[in-house]
This record gives sequence, C-alpha cells and structure tokens, in this order.
Amino acid sequence: MSEVGRDPLDFIVIGASGDLARRKIYPALFSLYCQGLLPERFSVYGLARSAMDNDQFRERISSALTCRYVPGHSCGDYIRKFLDRCHYLSGAYDSADSFLSLFQLMREEGGPQLPNMVFYLAIPPAIFVDVARSIGNAGLVRCGGGDPWSRVVIEKPFGRDRQSSDHLTHELANVFTEEQTYRIDHYLGKEVIQNLMVLRFANLVFEPIWNRKYIERVWVDWRENIGIEGRAGYFDNYGIIRDVVQNHLLQIVAMIAMERPKISDARHIRDEKVKVLKSINFVSKADVVLGQYTASKWKDKQRIGYKEEDGVPADSITPTFAATRLYVDNERWKGVPFIIRAGKGMNRRENEVRLQFRDVEDNIFGMGARHLPSNELVIRIQPDEGVFLSIVSKQPGLDVVLEKTDLNLRYQLAFGASIPDAYECLLMDVIEGDKSLFIRSDELEAAWDIFTPVLQRFSEERVMPAEYEFGSLGPAIDRIL
Amino acid sequence: MSEVGRDPLDFIVIGASGDLARRKIYPALFSLYCQGLLPERFSVYGLARSAMDNDQFRERISSALTCRYVPGHSCGDYIRKFLDRCHYLSGAYDSADSFLSLFQLMREEGGPQLPNMVFYLAIPPAIFVDVARSIGNAGLVRCGGGDPWSRVVIEKPFGRDRQSSDHLTHELANVFTEEQTYRIDHYLGKEVIQNLMVLRFANLVFEPIWNRKYIERVWVDWRENIGIEGRAGYFDNYGIIRDVVQNHLLQIVAMIAMERPKISDARHIRDEKVKVLKSINFVSKADVVLGQYTASKWKDKQRIGYKEEDGVPADSITPTFAATRLYVDNERWKGVPFIIRAGKGMNRRENEVRLQFRDVEDNIFGMGARHLPSNELVIRIQPDEGVFLSIVSKQPGLDVVLEKTDLNLRYQLAFGASIPDAYECLLMDVIEGDKSLFIRSDELEAAWDIFTPVLQRFSEERVMPAEYEFGSLGPAIDRIL
Repeated sequence: MSEVGRDPLDFIVIGASGDLARRKIYPALFSLYCQGLLPERFSVYGLARSAMDNDQFRERISSALTCRYVPGHSCGDYIRKFLDRCHYLSGAYDSADSFLSLFQLMREEGGPQLPNMVFYLAIPPAIFVDVARSIGNAGLVRCGGGDPWSRVVIEKPFGRDRQSSDHLTHELANVFTEEQTYRIDHYLGKEVIQNLMVLRFANLVFEPIWNRKYIERVWVDWRENIGIEGRAGYFDNYGIIRDVVQNHLLQIVAMIAMERPKISDARHIRDEKVKVLKSINFVSKADVVLGQYTASKWKDKQRIGYKEEDGVPADSITPTFAATRLYVDNERWKGVPFIIRAGKGMNRRENEVRLQFRDVEDNIFGMGARHLPSNELVIRIQPDEGVFLSIVSKQPGLDVVLEKTDLNLRYQLAFGASIPDAYECLLMDVIEGDKSLFIRSDELEAAWDIFTPVLQRFSEERVMPAEYEFGSLGPAIDRIL
Repeated sequence: MSEVGRDPLDFIVIGASGDLARRKIYPALFSLYCQGLLPERFSVYGLARSAMDNDQFRERISSALTCRYVPGHSCGDYIRKFLDRCHYLSGAYDSADSFLSLFQLMREEGGPQLPNMVFYLAIPPAIFVDVARSIGNAGLVRCGGGDPWSRVVIEKPFGRDRQSSDHLTHELANVFTEEQTYRIDHYLGKEVIQNLMVLRFANLVFEPIWNRKYIERVWVDWRENIGIEGRAGYFDNYGIIRDVVQNHLLQIVAMIAMERPKISDARHIRDEKVKVLKSINFVSKADVVLGQYTASKWKDKQRIGYKEEDGVPADSITPTFAATRLYVDNERWKGVPFIIRAGKGMNRRENEVRLQFRDVEDNIFGMGARHLPSNELVIRIQPDEGVFLSIVSKQPGLDVVLEKTDLNLRYQLAFGASIPDAYECLLMDVIEGDKSLFIRSDELEAAWDIFTPVLQRFSEERVMPAEYEFGSLGPAIDRIL
C-alpha cells in the first residue's frame, strides 16, 4: 500500500444523497479510514441534486456508520474527524458548471497540491454519460498514467444488451481511458468469491478433480425471499437476467471455470476470465426457464404478485426468476452443464455455488441396493458464508449405515467477525489501482454476447414467464437439466 | 442380525476377574443387551483363578457398567436383569476339569438346548495355548460351520515374532479352526477407522488424489503422555513396536494403502489387506529410530524414567518410542514414505493419520516468495475424533494473505454422543460371525514378516534406544525422513 500514504486523495461521490452511497460507500470509506488505510490528506466530496448543507450531509453519512474497526479509541472521535472531511455541493448532473463549482470547492478545501481523484458514479445508468461528459468538460480528468491520477467507478447495469453496453463504453471512453475506468461488481469483493482462486490454485487437492471427468454439474444459486421492494422503475426495465445473472452470477461462473492464470495479477486474471467467457456458447431459448412471482400467503402474511407491485405494468413480461443452462466449450468442461438459478420472491435468501461430483462408479457398499449420495463442494456466499465439502461417512453405530456429512469451513467460526464488507475491499483496490476484481471492457462484451440474443428473442416474442407463488421454490426447471 | 434372535448364546470370559474384562467386555455386552441386540436366552459365564462367588462377580461387573443406552427405563432394572445372567466359576486355566465344571454349570443354568458359544480369552498370551487345550479337552468346542457354533476371541500380543506367532497359530488351530478364531484388534472397531474404507470408496473426491502423484508422505502418529503404568512385566518383554506398531498402527497403514476390494465383505477386505502388507518391504535398522523416556519434570510434576519404573531392569534396552519408515512397493505408493511414530511418556495423548499432500507446483500467489502450506487430510482417532482436510484459504481482509484452515468433520459435533465403543462393535461382529474387522492368520504372518528381522537385530546387537525426556516430543527422527 505504498502509494496511498503520501498524496492527497479526493473521493468524489456523484449521487451523494442516494441509497447506495449511504449504505455502502460511506461506511466502507469510514472503515478504511479507521484502519489508517487512507492518506493523511483525504476528503470526501458529495454532489447531488438534493438541496442540502454540509451539516445535513454529514448527518446523513453519520447515520450509516458503524464502529467495527475503531481500535481502542472513542468511536465518536473517529466519526467526528471523518465527518470533518466530508463536503457537499448541490448541483445538476448535466451541467459542467456544477462540476466547476465542485472543483472550486475542492481547491478551497484542499489547497494548491493537486489531489488524486476517485469519481464514484452512484447514479442511475441513464445519466452515466451526461455526468461523465460534465466531469470531462469541467476539466477535472487528468489523463495519462502518471500522478496525480483520476479514476472513475461505475456500477451495473452496464447497458441492457451488447449494443447499449458498447454505446456506454464508447461514450465513457471519451472522458476516461479504459485504464481509468473501474467497473465494479461487488460480488467479486465478497470474501468467499475472492477465496475461489485461492481454493483452486493454492491447494493441490481440488484441481485434479476440477473437470468434467469428476464434475457432473455446477449450480450457481441465488434466491431472495423478498420482492422488488419498490424498485419497479428499475427492475421492470431490466429483469432478473440483467439484474444479477449476466453480471454477478456469470462472474462467479467465470471464476469457477477459468484456467489458472500465469500470474495472479489483474491482466492475467482478466485474460483468463475473458477466455472462458468466450468459450461459453450463447444461450438459446431452450436453455432458459423464466418465472414471475404471483400473490400468495407466505409465512402467515399475504404477499402481492409481481404484477401488483407499484409501478409494474399489468401485462409485464419481466422475469423475476430465471434458470439458465450454460456450457463451457473447452477441454475441461465440455458437456458439463452450469445451471444458474436466480429468483426473487422465493422461499429463502441464499446464494451459493455447488460443484456436484459424479457418482462413485462401483459402490462396494450395498451393491447398488442403496444409492450413494454424490459428493458436493459448496461455496456459500450468503448467509453463513463458508466452504463445505459433502462426503459420505459411516454413521457411528454397529451397522454400516452411510450418510451424507460435511467437511466444513464456516467463516464465522473460523475467522470470527472480522470479515470486511465487499465495498471496503473494492474501494481500497480502486485507491491502490488494483484492477483484478473489476470488469474489463472485453469481459463485459463477452458477458453480453452470451445473453443478448436470447434477451432479444424473449422481448420480440413477448415470452410470458411461468408463474410461481411468492415464497415457493420457483417454476420447474426439469426441462433444462 | 437375523441369526442372533433365536438361538441361546453363552458368552464365556476366561480371565473373568481381570481388568480388560471389567473395563471393556462386560460394559460392551451390557450395552448390546440394553439395545436388544442379544438373544433372549443369553448368559455370561466367567472363569478365573480368583476365589469369588456369583455375588462378588456381579458386584465387580456392576461397578463398570454405564447406562448410556437404556431407553426410557430405569437403568437399575436393566443392570439387575443383566447381572442375573452372569455366572462365575473359579478354576485353574490348565485343567480340563475346570472347563468340565464350567460346562456342567452351563447345562444347569441353560437347559438342554445346546447354546452357541463365544470363548473370550482375556488372559495373558503365555497361557493362551493351555486354556485352548483345556477347552478342547473338555469337549466344549463344536467344529464345523453349522449350528450351534463355537468361536474364540483372542487379543494381542499374538507372539513376539513370526516364529512364536506361528507357534501360537498352530497350537490354537489344534482346538479351533481358523474360521472359528477371531483375532481382535480393537483399533479396527473404532468408528474413525471403520470410516476409512467408506471415505475412500464411497466418495468420488478422494480416490483420484490417493496416490504417489499427489501424496508426499503418510504419517501414522500415536502418542501417550503416560508411562507404562505398572505394566513392566508385560511391556519390558515386548516394547513399543510389538505393543502398538506391528498390530494397531500397521493395520491402519493397511487400511490407508489397500486397493479397493471387489466387495465389502470379510474375505475380499482381508485379501486386499494381506496383499498390501505383502507389498511392504521388511523394515531395516536404517528405517527405525528407537527411544526410551527418561526422568524429567513435566507439568510441575517429577516423572520417573523408564528404567526407574518398578520391575524394569536397570539395563533395559526396551524401546518406549519408535519411529518407523515403511514403503509400500506397488504402483500406487512407490516412493511414498509411511512414517509410523509411536511413543509413551510423550507430550500429549494423540492418535492420528495424516496424508500430507505434495506442494502446489506453480504458486501464482507471491511467486515463490512465500511457501504455501501443503494440504493434509487428517483422520484423528483420538482425542476429538474426526476428519480434517487442511486447505489454504484467503484470510478475510483487504490484503491477500493466505493461511492454513480446516475443512472439518468433528464427530462429536456431527454425530453427538452416540459413538459406540470399539468393543461393542467387535463383539457384535463375533456374535454375528462377521470377520471383516478381525485379523486373519495370513495377515498376522505378513505383519510379523515386516518387523521380525529388525526386532531380532535390535535384540542381538543390544541396540540402545535414544533417550528422550518424559513429556517431550521424543528423539529426533530426521534420519528417516
């Protein structure tokens, strides 16, 4: 972390009054601050349309901070000192003037030495380009690889399909170079996901069985037991595939399926991810089951269906559930289905990867009379994150009764409470210039190529998702197994 | 368990007043009785030299019983009913008359129907042959495979070397057929050991890496933090290799190294064990490090050395520690050292098997600057029995710090307290006629062939073991690594 200490850093949050900023960005920055990981001269500048003064801004930030990392000091002291570094400016996103005023404020507060700058675009994607242009027009972006640097962070959705994504990439590239652009996928900052490469490449025991000879099927499961929570405007326009499958869950597939990079650095890791994404055949209609949740009584409460949600058109065909079968067409994975299953309004909140191994060919116990459960390696992202290897063991007792048991590594038990939030990790990487966990433009293109044809077809044919009751397991997916 | 229910069963304990009988045999029988696993007409007959009446015998038994398995009844009731079935006779071991009297008593108590009979020889090995002869001369043994059957159970030591072992086998064979003879090794009844075959052959994930390509070394560790506890008469004559290495620990090696049996039955399992034992080269002097504990102050208490123990000659060369390197000379294991390390008077009580995997060849994390810990599969027999796969994980946190963690299956956590004692399992097998977990004569011969030459050489050359302090890690074993 050598470069961090010396140079002043301004962290500029565009969309400073929004929910993402409040819930994720400020707490992550505060946590890094408490750990002494930010430069001596570090400031936060917030810009948004809301009329707010500094005090109100600081009040808003303060309400979301927690004191997890404050070592042997009063938390209040830390919060006060952190808030002193936070400044707010109200302005229009499409006006270079707003950003000139912001620049002015930064000069006043920060003094003559030019700071490194992170622009965090915590705003709806529709205005990414406007904001980027305004930043550019205000002359805030310093190009080139030298110091002081400017970097921009954007969050999904990166377009709705390959075409709109390319457009966004192109427009942003007029202001920021690819090197300066950090496309965040916060799933890649989660500890268990970061551990995937370590599991595979720092251990001898997994790699020999990490292929089609031993693996029958890979599951990537993502379920939520809530609906769209008032986000109809966004969600109905995107749907579950664009919301989580094409990005978060496909990234997980890439981490599971990729070959070993020559070196564990940003370029080599992302080269391997692109390679594997390009080996995935584009998804056809026959590979996908769509679903949409309907009203039901679940856990003693009446739940409304998706079409009854505020702001959702009564004839919406937007899927809230999708199960997708992918094949990675290479030597390692040929013929092994990767099943990505994602849904809202389901029976529980859970996100996990399961490598389901093939059956033992000759069962010497019971001679086929009883089917042995197959082994599974489960990487659970939430809740209760951990790694679990399910194996068959003899149940203690006088008879030979075999049962499924777990070899487990539960993070809470093994590592205690010190598991940092994904955003802490990713923001630190932005500041340090480590792009390993961010999406490169060619990765994004390859990811869209997999899903764009089928998304277009669903839209053109107005394919109606299967109905499933809120709180259920979702529609049957046998068709794609 | 079909055959158990119908026919009367007499369980005859020779050496009925001894420690093994009291601590292990009666509690195991009582536990089987409480679980309803013994026939309706079941009796225990004890024979020993001590003058004792039935009440004293029952008192002695009763003092060791626990009520683990009594389901919804008063434990006292169960104990009373069990003790009613226990009968004692005092007699000489080398006299057929004693056994005729015993037979008489059995007829009086049991009625005219001939019972199945288990003879458990809980006596010193020196009198095995005398007792067997007396049983035979009294006409108690019914040969042939039909009902009612007679079976004999004997415990190690089975001789001091190949020659004396063969002599014992030969003499016993004059009375009992090999089919009737159950050579017990109580380690094979331990749950974790019984699980070894299941782990290997009912799971897909272990077998592909269970060979010299992936395994660097296999450790079988057995340590006790006590001395010989007054058993100088036995121990000084045998030493640690004969006490635990040639039997218990070599059996574990056989379970780890054996090929998959075609069927999981007694014949095929023991065929494979014999095959692997015969593939082990006999041990030479260069493969062994011997040790003998000396006096020390350990855990705030003065401990005496082995030579100061009551009954041990001042010039004893009997080893209380031995580390032995074995090689299994076949395709799977060629070149992989199996290190058996056993000792008394050491720093802790522990018995475990560790499969130490090779290093990951290309460490992409840190580029060789930091050495990655190698994976290990640990099968812990005691204490806290379980299976542990040590893997390298990313420590949660902002930097990529790799550390050794465990995927674990702890029996107490996974299965609760219902882990039966090894003797319950093995006695049930004797009654059911399942010989999978007992040592066949050709197994015993192969086991002795491995150690007999080096034991003879140590004795002829009067090799003095290295000294190590009581409570230490034992002598250095680098020489054999």
